[in-house]
Amino acid sequence: MNRLTPIALALAGLAAALPAAAQFQKPEDAIKYRQGAMFLQAITFGRVAAMANGRVPFDAKVINENIELVATLNKLQFAAFIDGTDLGNTKAKPEIWMQKDKWNAKVAKSQEDVAKLVAAGKTGNIDPIKAAVGAVGRSCKSCHDDFQLE
Amino acid sequence: MNRLTPIALALAGLAAALPAAAQFQKPEDAIKYRQGAMFLQAITFGRVAAMANGRVPFDAKVINENIELVATLNKLQFAAFIDGTDLGNTKAKPEIWMQKDKWNAKVAKSQEDVAKLVAAGKTGNIDPIKAAVGAVGRSCKSCHDDFQLE
Repeated sequence: MNRLTPIALALAGLAAALPAAAQFQKPEDAIKYRQGAMFLQAITFGRVAAMANGRVPFDAKVINENIELVATLNKLQFAAFIDGTDLGNTKAKPEIWMQKDKWNAKVAKSQEDVAKLVAAGKTGNIDPIKAAVGAVGRSCKSCHDDFQLE
Repeated sequence: MNRLTPIALALAGLAAALPAAAQFQKPEDAIKYRQGAMFLQAITFGRVAAMANGRVPFDAKVINENIELVATLNKLQFAAFIDGTDLGNTKAKPEIWMQKDKWNAKVAKSQEDVAKLVAAGKTGNIDPIKAAVGAVGRSCKSCHDDFQLE
């Protein structure tokens, strides 16, 4: 047991009712699902970052709604990297399924940084949100550097 | 003012902080965003329907989580049918932007049927959920029949 366990459990809970593979009828559905979730997440996180960095006027209610949405989409994305979805129309590197410990640690770090962003959002103050946005951005990049094809 | 007004207001509130077009940097982003939201919604609604129709064992907690997710994705999808996104890689018919009243009524009906599904989910009973699932399915089909290219 390590400190990432609660997050790993929360992730596992996402698909508690069914074995992961049964959540998708075809591997290409899981691939399209995670790509959709990741795109929506990128747009939504971009809105959060724009407000945190002062490019758009700060509105605590709006940024919180977008942060909560990032947290939801982040979970959806990771729920679709199931076994058997390493081939096809995907930029996911096979290392995701070959280096499971490393991948799981990156997923847990991402969820942890997003949870901190959710907490920062609840303060209603721009400074902690800005710091948490930076951490999430680095978390995204770190995983893409290792596990996403160019 | 008619009985759809509260729903129309709720929809408008989604993008309250910025003019709709400013929420997306490029028209193709809005198109890809709504396609992603619609695909995630289809997969999630499929899980709800499978449980409501007895193809998967009923679990009140899981079906409620999926119903709430359908409601979120439904809002995201409709927030991206903004002006200037009628051309490009889209199956959206130009009628969406040419018959605004008809389109808005279909959107309102969809949101209303989804709100009823959310309420049915909270009962924890399969029968009202099954009925509400049927209504949402018909709502989806009705809009696709009129406004989606084959």
